[in-house]
Amino acid sequence: MALMTPGQFENSLKEFKPRVFMNGKKVENILANKNTRTVVEANKASYAWAIDPQYKNLMSCYSPLIDDVVNRYTSVSTSIDDLVKKAEVGTFAAEMLGTCIYRCVGYDTFHALASTCWEMDKDLGTEYHARFLEYLKMVQRKDLSVAGALTEPRGQRSQKTLDWPDPYLSLKLVDKNRDGIVVQGAKINISGAFASHELVVLPQSAHSEGEEDYAIAFAIPADTEGITYVCQYSPFSAERDQCDDIYELGNPLFGQRETSMVIFDNVFVPWDRVFHCGEYKYSITFVTRFAKTHRMTCGGTCKVGFMNQIIGAAKLIQEYKGLENASHINDQLIEMVVLRETGRACGMAAATKGIEDPPGSGVYLPDELMGNVAKLNICNAFWRVMALAGDIGGGLIVTLPSLKELKNPEIKDYVKEFYNFGSNEPTENIMKVHKLLQHWTAGQHGVATWHGAGPVMAQKIMLHRLINYEHEKKIVKRVLNLKEKSKDA
Amino acid sequence: MALMTPGQFENSLKEFKPRVFMNGKKVENILANKNTRTVVEANKASYAWAIDPQYKNLMSCYSPLIDDVVNRYTSVSTSIDDLVKKAEVGTFAAEMLGTCIYRCVGYDTFHALASTCWEMDKDLGTEYHARFLEYLKMVQRKDLSVAGALTEPRGQRSQKTLDWPDPYLSLKLVDKNRDGIVVQGAKINISGAFASHELVVLPQSAHSEGEEDYAIAFAIPADTEGITYVCQYSPFSAERDQCDDIYELGNPLFGQRETSMVIFDNVFVPWDRVFHCGEYKYSITFVTRFAKTHRMTCGGTCKVGFMNQIIGAAKLIQEYKGLENASHINDQLIEMVVLRETGRACGMAAATKGIEDPPGSGVYLPDELMGNVAKLNICNAFWRVMALAGDIGGGLIVTLPSLKELKNPEIKDYVKEFYNFGSNEPTENIMKVHKLLQHWTAGQHGVATWHGAGPVMAQKIMLHRLINYEHEKKIVKRVLNLKEKSKDA
Amino acid sequence: MALMTPGQFENSLKEFKPRVFMNGKKVENILANKNTRTVVEANKASYAWAIDPQYKNLMSCYSPLIDDVVNRYTSVSTSIDDLVKKAEVGTFAAEMLGTCIYRCVGYDTFHALASTCWEMDKDLGTEYHARFLEYLKMVQRKDLSVAGALTEPRGQRSQKTLDWPDPYLSLKLVDKNRDGIVVQGAKINISGAFASHELVVLPQSAHSEGEEDYAIAFAIPADTEGITYVCQYSPFSAERDQCDDIYELGNPLFGQRETSMVIFDNVFVPWDRVFHCGEYKYSITFVTRFAKTHRMTCGGTCKVGFMNQIIGAAKLIQEYKGLENASHINDQLIEMVVLRETGRACGMAAATKGIEDPPGSGVYLPDELMGNVAKLNICNAFWRVMALAGDIGGGLIVTLPSLKELKNPEIKDYVKEFYNFGSNEPTENIMKVHKLLQHWTAGQHGVATWHGAGPVMAQKIMLHRLINYEHEKKIVKRVLNLKEKSKDA
Amino acid sequence: MALMTPGQFENSLKEFKPRVFMNGKKVENILANKNTRTVVEANKASYAWAIDPQYKNLMSCYSPLIDDVVNRYTSVSTSIDDLVKKAEVGTFAAEMLGTCIYRCVGYDTFHALASTCWEMDKDLGTEYHARFLEYLKMVQRKDLSVAGALTEPRGQRSQKTLDWPDPYLSLKLVDKNRDGIVVQGAKINISGAFASHELVVLPQSAHSEGEEDYAIAFAIPADTEGITYVCQYSPFSAERDQCDDIYELGNPLFGQRETSMVIFDNVFVPWDRVFHCGEYKYSITFVTRFAKTHRMTCGGTCKVGFMNQIIGAAKLIQEYKGLENASHINDQLIEMVVLRETGRACGMAAATKGIEDPPGSGVYLPDELMGNVAKLNICNAFWRVMALAGDIGGGLIVTLPSLKELKNPEIKDYVKEFYNFGSNEPTENIMKVHKLLQHWTAGQHGVATWHGAGPVMAQKIMLHRLINYEHEKKIVKRVLNLKEKSKDA
Repeated sequence: MALMTPGQFENSLKEFKPRVFMNGKKVENILANKNTRTVVEANKASYAWAIDPQYKNLMSCYSPLIDDVVNRYTSVSTSIDDLVKKAEVGTFAAEMLGTCIYRCVGYDTFHALASTCWEMDKDLGTEYHARFLEYLKMVQRKDLSVAGALTEPRGQRSQKTLDWPDPYLSLKLVDKNRDGIVVQGAKINISGAFASHELVVLPQSAHSEGEEDYAIAFAIPADTEGITYVCQYSPFSAERDQCDDIYELGNPLFGQRETSMVIFDNVFVPWDRVFHCGEYKYSITFVTRFAKTHRMTCGGTCKVGFMNQIIGAAKLIQEYKGLENASHINDQLIEMVVLRETGRACGMAAATKGIEDPPGSGVYLPDELMGNVAKLNICNAFWRVMALAGDIGGGLIVTLPSLKELKNPEIKDYVKEFYNFGSNEPTENIMKVHKLLQHWTAGQHGVATWHGAGPVMAQKIMLHRLINYEHEKKIVKRVLNLKEKSKDA
Repeated sequence: MALMTPGQFENSLKEFKPRVFMNGKKVENILANKNTRTVVEANKASYAWAIDPQYKNLMSCYSPLIDDVVNRYTSVSTSIDDLVKKAEVGTFAAEMLGTCIYRCVGYDTFHALASTCWEMDKDLGTEYHARFLEYLKMVQRKDLSVAGALTEPRGQRSQKTLDWPDPYLSLKLVDKNRDGIVVQGAKINISGAFASHELVVLPQSAHSEGEEDYAIAFAIPADTEGITYVCQYSPFSAERDQCDDIYELGNPLFGQRETSMVIFDNVFVPWDRVFHCGEYKYSITFVTRFAKTHRMTCGGTCKVGFMNQIIGAAKLIQEYKGLENASHINDQLIEMVVLRETGRACGMAAATKGIEDPPGSGVYLPDELMGNVAKLNICNAFWRVMALAGDIGGGLIVTLPSLKELKNPEIKDYVKEFYNFGSNEPTENIMKVHKLLQHWTAGQHGVATWHGAGPVMAQKIMLHRLINYEHEKKIVKRVLNLKEKSKDA
Repeated sequence: MALMTPGQFENSLKEFKPRVFMNGKKVENILANKNTRTVVEANKASYAWAIDPQYKNLMSCYSPLIDDVVNRYTSVSTSIDDLVKKAEVGTFAAEMLGTCIYRCVGYDTFHALASTCWEMDKDLGTEYHARFLEYLKMVQRKDLSVAGALTEPRGQRSQKTLDWPDPYLSLKLVDKNRDGIVVQGAKINISGAFASHELVVLPQSAHSEGEEDYAIAFAIPADTEGITYVCQYSPFSAERDQCDDIYELGNPLFGQRETSMVIFDNVFVPWDRVFHCGEYKYSITFVTRFAKTHRMTCGGTCKVGFMNQIIGAAKLIQEYKGLENASHINDQLIEMVVLRETGRACGMAAATKGIEDPPGSGVYLPDELMGNVAKLNICNAFWRVMALAGDIGGGLIVTLPSLKELKNPEIKDYVKEFYNFGSNEPTENIMKVHKLLQHWTAGQHGVATWHGAGPVMAQKIMLHRLINYEHEKKIVKRVLNLKEKSKDA
Repeated sequence: MALMTPGQFENSLKEFKPRVFMNGKKVENILANKNTRTVVEANKASYAWAIDPQYKNLMSCYSPLIDDVVNRYTSVSTSIDDLVKKAEVGTFAAEMLGTCIYRCVGYDTFHALASTCWEMDKDLGTEYHARFLEYLKMVQRKDLSVAGALTEPRGQRSQKTLDWPDPYLSLKLVDKNRDGIVVQGAKINISGAFASHELVVLPQSAHSEGEEDYAIAFAIPADTEGITYVCQYSPFSAERDQCDDIYELGNPLFGQRETSMVIFDNVFVPWDRVFHCGEYKYSITFVTRFAKTHRMTCGGTCKVGFMNQIIGAAKLIQEYKGLENASHINDQLIEMVVLRETGRACGMAAATKGIEDPPGSGVYLPDELMGNVAKLNICNAFWRVMALAGDIGGGLIVTLPSLKELKNPEIKDYVKEFYNFGSNEPTENIMKVHKLLQHWTAGQHGVATWHGAGPVMAQKIMLHRLINYEHEKKIVKRVLNLKEKSKDA
C-alpha cells in the first residue's frame, strides 16, 4: 500500500533540509524548532488518520491512477460525491487540529492543474496533462505532503506587473533550456510549505500579452536549492518558543496557522514538473479554478471545524460556571451553531452543485457562486463567533495568569480557588479551556480567516463577474406584464 | 390523466360556496371579489404549470399510489431527490407569483400526516395511515387544491389551553359518534383556505393528558357547513378594491399573501377524514414534522423566489437610471444575491441531508437543524434585502403618484418626463417596476416573512431542543488532552 | 402676539387655492380631501402646541427680529441652546404626530438662507441678507407655515444638468426683469407643500460656470399661479380614501408622510423674494448647510419620536399578551431603546458641537460630521426597529381583519375573542395598536426614513469630503516613534 | 504646586515594594520587569501631560479642596463641564497610550465614593464623607496614582455569596478593632494596581442582610503587607519578555492592558481609610454609581481614542499601498469613523445629560441610560472596527515576520522589497504600522473591550431596570385616541 505511517512521514523529513529563517535566525531543524514542529505535527496527523480504522474511509480513497488506496489529500475529485467528501475531510481535519491541515492548498492546486492542463492540451495541443498525471502518480505512490503557493509580494497596487521595479515582487521565468526552466521571485503568506515534501506553484493572477514569463505553474521539492523560507513570527510564536510545557499553550500540539514567504533565487525546474509556461491566457483559469475550490474549503469546511472547537470550549465554560440555564448564553451558543451550519450549508451546496469543469475533463469542481458565498459569509461569521465566545469565556480569556502559577507554591492555592467557579472540574482543565479560547478569540484568527482564500473584496469581485441578472429581470417583466415598446410612444 | 386544466380548476370553484367575510361584509363570490380573486389566480397558475411542457417536469410527478402523473403539490416526498424537487418547486412558484402558492401548506401537512399516521399505527395499532392514503389518492385523482391549518387564536400566553375561558381559542372535539366527530374552535392566519377545495387541519402545539379533545387532525372540504372565513384587510386590500386596472398595482394578478381566520362552528368530520383523535402524545410529532418541512420551504425556497423578483426590479431600476457602473449599487445587488444564495444553500442542505422519518415509513423529511437554520437566516435576510432594494429604488418607491396620472391630460407629460430618468424605457414600465418594489419593500413582506412558519424565537426554541454539544466538547478535550480527574486532586 | 390659533390657521387655508392633483383627479379642497387633510392636521397641531401652556416653552421662542414670541418653526438658531431646542422640538413633534411636522424643512432652509445670504453679501456685496430678514419678519408676524424644496427630477444620472433635454428636470430661471424673475422646472418628493402658506426653494446641488440660471433660491406663496402639485398615492392613500371612520386607520388624524411633485410653469418671483440668483459658487453652500441641518433633524430627532410610538405600541402588545416577563421580548425592547438613544445622542452631539457658521453671521448650525453620522445610523436603525417591533406585534400586524368586523353582527364576537389575548383590554384598542404597528412596520417608513434627507450614500459622500485623517496618522507615528526618513536609506 | 514631574513619579515607585508574581515567578522590580514597566510608563505619561503646556488645560484642573492645581485623575466632577472634560481626557489618554491610563478606575471610584459617602452620612449620620475628603486631599497634595478594584473571583454563579465555601472568593471583613478593620479575600482583573500608589476598593455587587461583612469600601497603599498581585500572562507578555528592542513590538512603550488578581491576606485598614462598613443597603449604590461613571468612560471615551490609533494605522497602510482612491477602502474607513463618532456622541450625551447625584451632594455623574448605551454600542463596534482594519491591513497582520529580519543580512533585502509595496516609506515603518494593527486586531482587544466595565449583559440588565415605558405608551394611546374602558363592555 502506498500510505505512509506517521513515523515514516517524520522520518522522511529528517533527510529533508529546507533553508528556513524565523525571528532573525536560521532554523537548523524543523523537527526540533518548537514553532516549525507544529506544522510537522499537523501534517503527521493526516498520515495517522488515513490508516486509522475510525477515519480512513474519510481520509483515504481509491486512486485508479495507481490502482491503490491513497491519502485523499493527494487525489483529484471526479464526482459530486468526491466533492462532498472533500468538504467533510476539511471540517474533520480542522476540528481535530484547530489549525490548518497544511496539505489542503496542495490538494486544491491539484484540482486547478488537472482541469486546466487538460484544457490547455485540448485547446493548444500541449502535453501538460499527461505530465501532471505522472507527477500526481509519483505523489500518490510516495504519499507525499504537498503545499501550494499563489500569493506574491507585488509592488504598488496601481501599477502593472511589468512596471514593478524590484526583481522578486512576482515570480517569473528568467531562463529556459532543454532540461527545464529557471525561476526567480517570491510567494508570500504560504501555509506550511517548509514542512511539506513538495511545493506546487500557480500564477497569482491573470496575465496578459508581454507577461508570458509570469505565466508559469510547476512543482518542486520543497528543499530545492535556491528556495528560502522566511517564517511569520507573532506573539504566539514567542510564547511557544519560551514555554517548557506545550500543554500550557492554547493549541498545544498544532499551534497557530504557520506561513512563510518563499523566495526563489534562480531555482531550476525540470520540464517534467512544468505545467504552464507562457500560455498567459490560461493563468486566470488556474487562478479562478483554484479560488473556487479553495473558497469552498476555507468558507464552508475548515471554519466549520474551527467553530466546533470554539463552541465546545464555550459550552464547557458555561457548564463549569453552572450556567446551563442562562438563556442569554444558550442564545449565544445557538447563534454560533447557526453561523456554523450556515457555513456548512454553503460549503455543502458548493459541493452538491459542483460540475465537471471543463466538460470532458473528468475533474469535478465546486459551484463558483456558492464557493464565493460560503467564504464571504464566513469572513463575517468568524468575527461574530469570536465575539460571542469571548462573551461567554469572560474577561479571563485575556487576564488569565500563566498556567505556571499552578506549580508556584506561593500562588497555586489562590489560582485553584479563583478559577474553579465552584465546580468539580480540576482548575487546570478550566484554565486550559480558557487558554484555547484565548487562542481562538484573542489572537490571529479573525484576520487570518478573513484573508485566507482572499478577503471579502476578492469574493465580491468574483461574484460581480459571475452574476448576470437576466433571469431576475425576466420574471419581473412577466409578473408586471411589461410591454417592450419604445419610449412613451 | 388526473391533472385539471386551469379552466377546469376555475370551473370547479364555481359550485364551491365558502362563507367568507372581508372588510365587514360578506364576499358573495370569491371569483369576482378583487382580493379573493388573487388567491384563485395563484392556485390556478399551478394547474397551468403542471401541464406546461416547460414546467411540468418540476410541477408534476408520478404517484405510485394512483399510478398516474399528479401535481407535485398533492404528493409526499419519498426520496432525497423528491425533497430537492420540493425545494425547487417552492422557489419556482414564488418567483412566478410574487406571493404564496397557497397549496404549499397543504403539501407540507401531507408530509406530517404520512409519517405520523404511519408511526401511530405502528405504535398504537390504529388505522390512520391507510385512511390518510385513501384520502390522498382521492386528492390526487381529483387534483384538488388543499390548504393547511395549524395556528390558533389562543388566550393569555401564560395560561394553559384548558384554562382559556373562551370557546373558540383552540380547536377541539366537542362531540363524537359512529359516523365521525364534531369540532369547534378556530384557526387563524390561514393562507388561501377559502379558495382551496380542501382544508387539512393539524394540532397547533403539544398536548398533554387531559387535553385529548384538542389532539385532533382531519381533512374537510373548505366549504363545509359551519366553517366561516374572516379575511385580512390591509391598505393593499383597499387599494385593490378601489382600482379599476389591476396592472396599476404592485403585484397585478396575484396580490398580497391572503390569509383569513377560519371558524369552526360544530363542524362534522366523518371518520374516514379523521387522522388523529385523542392520542395526545403525537400532537407534538405532527407539529415538529410539519414545522421542519415548512421551515425548509419558507426559509430556503419561497423567499429565494421572492428575492429574485426584488433583485430583478432593483437591477432594472439601476439600468433605467444609467447607473450600471455605480459600484455601491453593484455591491448592494451582490449583497442581495449572497443573502439569497445563503437561503438557497440552507434549503438545499435541509433537503440533501433529509432522512426517512420515521425509518420504515417511506416518507422523507428535511433535516431539522438545517430547516430551522434556513428560516432563521431568512427572517433577518429578508428585512435586509428590503432595505437594500429600497435604497436602489429610491424615495420614489413611496412618493410615487398614481399610475392614473399617466392618463390625466393635465399631468401626464410632466410625469412621463420626471420618472423616465432620461432612459429609453416607457415611463409607464418604470413606474410599474417601482410599484413592484413598493409591494416588496414598503408593505407587508418584512413582518409576513418573519412570522410565516414561525418567528425567530420558534426556531431558537427548536434549535435549543435539537442541539447537544457532546461532539464539540469531546474535540476540545482531545485537542487539549484534558484529564478526566476529580477536582484538583 | 404674532401666534395664530389652530382655528385661525385652518381659516387661513380656506382662501388658499393651490392647484393639486391626486390619483388622477384634481383636489378641489385640500381641507376636505381625506389625504391632503392629514397635512393640514399635522401643521395645525403645531399652532396648538405653540400656545399650549404645557408645550409653549418648547414650541415657541422669542424673536428679536420682531420683538415678539414666534413659533419655533419660523426662527433661526443663534446659539447652541437654540440647536438643542431644535433637536427637542423635532422629537416632540414626531412623537405627537407619528408623521412629518411639515414645517421642518422650511425651518431648515431658513438656517441655510440666513447664513449663506449673510456670507454672499459679505463676499460679493449683494443684499440678500437684509431681503431674507424682511421676508422672515413677515413670516414671523403672520405666523406662516413654510415648506422647503430642494430635490429635482433630474435626467440621466451620468449626464450633467445642461445636457438633460427635457424642460422640467431641473428648476431654472427663464426670464428676468425689473420686478423679478420667472422660473420653470420642478421639485419632487416635497413634503406637505400644498398645505403650507409659503414655499422656500433652494438649489438641489452644486452648480458650475454656465449653470447660472439654475443657481437660484427664493420664496413664494404656495398657491401662486403656475404652480401645480401632483401628490403621491399609495395603498395607504387608497385605504384612507375608502374609510368612513379614520379611527380605524393606523395613524388616524395625521396619516402618512405626504409628498408631492411641485411643478413651476413660468412662475414669477418678485425680487424681494429672491435670495440667490446666478452666484453659482454658493449653490453648494446652500445645499451643504441645509443638509447638515436637516440630517441632524432627520437622523437624531424626528426618528427618535417615531421610535417612541413604535416602542410604546410594542410594549402595549407585550402587556396585552401577558408577556411582561418574556426575556426575549424585553431584550428586543431594550435593543429598540438603545437604537433610539443612539440616534438621540448623535443628534444631541450635532447640536452641542454646533458652531456659528460662518463666523460673524450669528447663525448656529449643527456639527456636520455628527449630523451625517446621526442620519447614517438611523437609516439602518429604523429598519431594525421595524423588524423588532414586527416580531413583537406578530403576524397579526399583516393578517388583521378590518376593524369594521367589530361592527359586523355575524363576526364581531369571534373577533373580540380572538384578538383579546385573554386580557382585560377592549379588543378594539388592541386591534388599533396593531393597526398603528402596521402603519410603522408594514408600510412606507423603512424606505421613507432611509431616503429622507438623503440616503446612506449621500451621507458617505459628505463624510468622505469632511474627514481627513491627519490627527489619527500623527498619533500612530508618535506611539510607534516612526522616523520620517527617506525610503530604506 | 502639588503636581509631580514624571521623574518624581518614577522615583516615588523606587521605594515602593508590592509583592507581585508573573509567569510563575516573583517580580523583584516592577520598574525593571519589561511587562510591569509598561504600566509605569502609562501612568508616568499622565504626569508629563499635566505639566505640559500643550495638554495641561485638559489633564489638570483646579481643586478647591486644596486650593491648588491637581491632576484631573485625582479630582471629582462637580459640573457638566467637568464631565465633558472627563470624557475628553479619557479619549486623549487612550489615543496617546494605546492602552489603559491606569488611573481611570480610581478616578471613577472617587465619583462613587464622593456621592455615596455624602448620602450615607445624610441618611445614617455616619462620617464617611469627611473622611473621604481628607483622603482625597492627601491624594491630591501628593499627586498619587490610584487604582480601583471591584470585580471578585466569586464561586458557583447560581449560589449566593454566603454559600461559597472558599475563603477568598469575595472580599470581606474578618476582624475589626479600635484602630481599623482586617480584610481577607481577593479582587480579580484589576488594571494596573501594582504600579499605583494607592488602591481604592469598592464592593462588587449588591449585598443583603447577613452579608454586612462584605459591605466594605476602603483605600490602602498598594504595597501594604498582606497584598499579593498575580499578573496576567499572555502571548503578548511572552513576546515582550523575549524581545530586546521594544520598538519591534506593536505598542512599544505602553504594551497591553495589564491586569492582575489582588489577594488580601488579613490586610489591616485603619479607620480613616474605611468608607463603607456594614451598611449593606448602600453597596449597590456604590456599584451603580461607579458603573455608570465607568461605562461612559469605557464606552464613549477611551475606545474612541483606541479607534483613532486603529483608523490612523489603516489609513497609513492605504497610503503606503497607493490605494487612496479605492472606494471600498474609503468606505471602510468611513464606517470606522461612524462607529467611533457614535461612541463619542453617546459618551458626550452621557456627560451633557449628567446630573448632580444625589441632589445636594455637589457631585456630578453621567446619565445612566446614555452611559450604558455607550458601552453596549462599543462592545459590538470594537469587534467591527477590528474586522475592518484587519481587512485593510491584510493577511500581513498575522503573517508578518519578525522585525529582526531587517537586521538579518541574509534576509533583509527581500523583506525590504516585499513589505514596501513600492512606496517611498522605509519598510521598517510599514512593518511597524502592521505590528500596531496586529496589537489591535490580532490580539486581546476584542474580548477586553467587551468585558471592561462589564459585558453586554450587564448593560442590558441595567437598562432593563432603568427603563419604564410609560411615556411611550401614553403617546400611543393619545395618537390612537384609545378609550380607557373595561373589556369589550
